[in-house]
Parts: sequence; structure tokens; C-alpha cells
Amino acid sequence: MKPIHNTLGLIAIVLASLTTTYAQDPLPSWNDTAPKKAIVAFVEKVTKEGSPDFIQPNERIATFDNDGTLWCEKPMPIQLFFALDRVKELAPQHPEWKDKEPFASLLKGDVKAAMAGGEHALLEIVMATHTGMTTGEFEKMVKDWIATAKHPTTKQPFTKMVYQPMIELLAYLRANGFKTFIVSGGGIEFMRPWTEGVYGIPPEQVVGSSGKTKYEIRDGQPVLVKLPEINFIDDKEGKPVGINQHIGRKPILSAGNVFSGGDIAMLRYCQSHPGATLQLMVNHDDAVREFAYAEPDDASLKAAAANGWMVVNMKNDWKKIFAFENK
Amino acid sequence: MKPIHNTLGLIAIVLASLTTTYAQDPLPSWNDTAPKKAIVAFVEKVTKEGSPDFIQPNERIATFDNDGTLWCEKPMPIQLFFALDRVKELAPQHPEWKDKEPFASLLKGDVKAAMAGGEHALLEIVMATHTGMTTGEFEKMVKDWIATAKHPTTKQPFTKMVYQPMIELLAYLRANGFKTFIVSGGGIEFMRPWTEGVYGIPPEQVVGSSGKTKYEIRDGQPVLVKLPEINFIDDKEGKPVGINQHIGRKPILSAGNVFSGGDIAMLRYCQSHPGATLQLMVNHDDAVREFAYAEPDDASLKAAAANGWMVVNMKNDWKKIFAFENK
Repeated sequence: MKPIHNTLGLIAIVLASLTTTYAQDPLPSWNDTAPKKAIVAFVEKVTKEGSPDFIQPNERIATFDNDGTLWCEKPMPIQLFFALDRVKELAPQHPEWKDKEPFASLLKGDVKAAMAGGEHALLEIVMATHTGMTTGEFEKMVKDWIATAKHPTTKQPFTKMVYQPMIELLAYLRANGFKTFIVSGGGIEFMRPWTEGVYGIPPEQVVGSSGKTKYEIRDGQPVLVKLPEINFIDDKEGKPVGINQHIGRKPILSAGNVFSGGDIAMLRYCQSHPGATLQLMVNHDDAVREFAYAEPDDASLKAAAANGWMVVNMKNDWKKIFAFENK
Repeated sequence: MKPIHNTLGLIAIVLASLTTTYAQDPLPSWNDTAPKKAIVAFVEKVTKEGSPDFIQPNERIATFDNDGTLWCEKPMPIQLFFALDRVKELAPQHPEWKDKEPFASLLKGDVKAAMAGGEHALLEIVMATHTGMTTGEFEKMVKDWIATAKHPTTKQPFTKMVYQPMIELLAYLRANGFKTFIVSGGGIEFMRPWTEGVYGIPPEQVVGSSGKTKYEIRDGQPVLVKLPEINFIDDKEGKPVGINQHIGRKPILSAGNVFSGGDIAMLRYCQSHPGATLQLMVNHDDAVREFAYAEPDDASLKAAAANGWMVVNMKNDWKKIFAFENK
């Protein structure tokens, strides 16, 4: 009887899924403007067997930048809030920080002054707050922090600061046989503890910047210790390098955002795939529902125009930005 | 009518798969000895919902060493045959190699003398043969080579030198919701062009040693150029580092082999997963069907005994080693 019982259950599931597929708009938070139309047309043509643009499921790789593309990066990237809280926590063990930049400014709450030191200052903060413990200890710190930390203006948990249209896009792509990856300049070990729950993207599909680690036996157990040494910076021209290192194939869909030109190389790399491809560039132009900001040199928008990438203007193309919105 | 038609088709597929599942031994090339029993018992307990050892499908990560674990590495690792053929091909452009080790010995066919220089010699060979081209060009070289190159004693294509019991184990694990990864000291870009076809393991699930690459625009197209600089050595204590970097979770099943002690750290790391785990150590004791060899210090077998890992003796535990065998 068991096989028959199982089969009936599976028929019910099949029928339910058919109904769902036919009844629902997979991208309800997108307005019916050019980007949504381009996404649906692209997914339909690459998944239609016999179509000249058909792409086998194993080649359906989609790569997404994280900060500003999947979640909010204003007033500053969320990993910096984490680092700042870690600096405060560690300050009692570092009396010298009171007179040492960038820590002195950070402890006074002046992030702008702390960041005046540019990349070097950022690196010092990351090394001081993200290394010296095991990977398991760091994972627990991130999980504990993200469970309670709140965004300063919306007062929402940071995990609610994700863009609802992108959550829908990720699910829509996966329902069509795509494998979805994050390819972010952010820290790989900062993202992995929560990306599976929040985006449905498992740790092995997260590519990011990283420090070196060292294998050690502690109390008879193997651990990996996080060293104060850079392993890889997954930003700008580093993104195609990271994609090749980690994924080993070119994506056919790639999404980035206007912030620092950090996604231009990734989108070009995606476009060089020999089959059909789609590139999305998120533009932050909604000062009411999110934050409005641009690049001083407009490099990302210029690259989008020159290469025919689809610009997603949050103001007009997204019906809803955050799930918690009441607008 | 279409939904009903689809449903009938899906019912047929469901029925067919149920029949297959109930009728076939998933590991026909394994003898009914301890390793096969341990594998089946392990898979059953971690996949049985409600069992105290149940592990969610997303946590079912299995990592396999490649050389000597999934395919033959005697008389020497297959990547060395590739490098040797590349040296011969490139020799006309390098007249100085006639008097320069390790190339001089290699060109005379004396691999042993060439390897007398140890790791340094190996590195020189890899740098000379694996770098200077784009990743796309290198991929094509590997594909062209592996399509025709043959093993010196069996005269079989190298892609037939894979262990049939391990092919079955990989498929059995995947059928039970496992994600299978290669974690090899071999070159990541040497493996990826053929692992999907041969093992069913896609490029993004291959972890290996690698050189650095650089993003460049050539003829208007983005390419990655392979530089003569080591990025990562995925061997010994490097394997847990590579697993953490690439996968971001501990495996629950891990398999390595007796050769150089290269898999001890990976198996220990696997065993430190808090849930149920299984470690397999392949022992090459079959001089007739494969090659018989051991480590001078027996480090891998000693580690297996000390930690309770399952030793797989090819002679007694594998009914068939290669699919082409007539024994």
C-alpha cells in the first residue's frame, strides 16, 4: 500500500503546484514596467526547450551583489554596524583605542571621521573585529548580533532591510531551475550565517571577501582560526575572479547596483557568456521609501547605457521595496 | 487539457522512480562487507525523519578527495600526464629546457628524475604548463587532451580510470539529498572541465588547488588570465581551509585515500561536525585489478584506526573497481 499512498500524495503536490504556477504572479512587488517584462521574457526563452536561447538547467547560474542590490546599504553597509558594535564591545580590552584612529572616532560615534582614513581605516577595523577567533566563534557572534540589531532609521531588524522584489526574483529564478549565488564585496563569513534563512541562498553559494584561516587542533578538536591577513577582496575586477574561483562558470543573469562601480566587471563578465544573458543594475532613486544616491562619476549607469543593461529604478519599477512597508 | 496531460506524465515518472528505488541495489559494485553496511546504515539514519540522527538535506554535505579516491593516481597522478604532454608540446618554444631541470629529464621521459626536485620541481612544471593563457583557453586544452589521452598500462581513456564503486556512492548520496563535492589537491581548473560529465559533480562543487587569475579586457571581451602565482594549495591542513572557504559548512561524510596523508585533516574536520558523520579511507591493496601501495609511515591508516574511520580495502570491499573490468 505504501507506494500507492505515496503516489497519491505526490499527485496532490503536483496538482497544487500546477495551480500555483498558473494562478500567481511570481513578481508581485515589481511594477509592470520594462525590467519586469525583460526578466520574464528572459526566463521564458532560456527555459523553453527547443528555443534557440534554451540553456540547460546546470548552466543557469545567477549572481547577485548583496549590499544595495539585495538589501539596503544606507546610511552605511550593514557589516559596518556590526563592526562598530564589536569595537564598542572590545574597547575595554583596548584602552589604547581612545587615542588611536580609526577607533577613537568610532568610539565617539563619528563614523564619517573614522572612515576618513579610507580603505586602510576600514581594513584596520575589520582586522580588529573579525579576526583572532575561530570560524565557529565568529559565526555565533554574527548570528547573535543579527538576531537583535536594528536599522537606525527604520528601526527594523537588518534582516528585514532586504528588497522584497529581489526576494521574489531569487525565488522565481530558482523555480525555473536557476542556481542563485551572492557575489559580494562584503565578508563571506559575515553573510553565510543568515543568507540561507533570509534569501534561500546556502553558504556554499555565497562568494565574498575573506581573510585567511589556519587549521589547528584545540582541545582535541580541529578548528579554523581567523587570521589578520587578507585572503581575497571580492569587489570590482575581483568579482569575475571570485566567480571563476568559486563557481567556475559564467553567470547568465547578474544583478548589481549603483554605489561605487563595484558591479561593472561582474555584469560585463556575465554578458560575455556565449548564450542569452541578462544584466540588471539597481538605481537608488527613491528618497521616500529607501535612500536616493548616485555615483559622482555615474560609472555604473554609463556602463549600463553603453552595454545595454537593464536599469531598475526603485522608484518606478518596484511596487514595494520592503515587506514591512505600508505604502 | 494541458495541466491534466502534464499530471499524467508526472504520475508515470513518480511510479517509475518508485519502482527503481525499491528494486535496485544502489551499490552493486560493493561487496557486502563492513564499508557498504556502514554506508547504507549511515545514509538511512541521517535521512530518516524523526530519527535522532536525522540531518536536514541542506546540511548533507559530502566531500571526496579525487586522486586515488575517485580515480586512479598510479603510476602517477593524471594531471602530471597532462603536464608532461604540455611540456612536450611547448618544448620547441623553449630550447633552454634541454639543459634545465626538471624539464630536461621530463623531455627524456624520466619522470622520476624530474620529480627528484620535489615540490619545487612540480611547481615549476605547473607554472610552465598551466599559466599564461586565459581560463577559457586552458579549459579547451584540458577538454581536448582528456578526450584522447590514455592510461599507460590499461590503455583506457583516463576518464574510464574512475572507481565504479565511488561513482555508485556519489549517485546514491545524491539520490538521498546529499550535495557531493570534490576537495582535491589537484588543480581546480584541470578537474572542472570533465567532473560534471564523469562524476555528476558540477564545477561549482569542485574545490582544488589554484593559481591566481587577473581580469583583463582583450579584443573588447573580459577574460581571466592565468598568472604564474599560487593562489591556494588544497592539500593536508589546506583541505579544511578550502572546505570552509568554498562550502562554508562541515561535511557529514568525507572520503580520502592512503597515499600521502593528504586527507587526514579533512576527515578529522568532517568528524568534528556535531551530528552523525562517516569517514571513509580507501586503501590500495589490490595489485591485480589496480595498484598496491602504502605510505611509508602508515599515517592515514593509523589515523583511521585512532579515530574509528572506515577503511575501504579495494581488494575485499569492491566487487568491481573499474567499469571496463572483466573480472
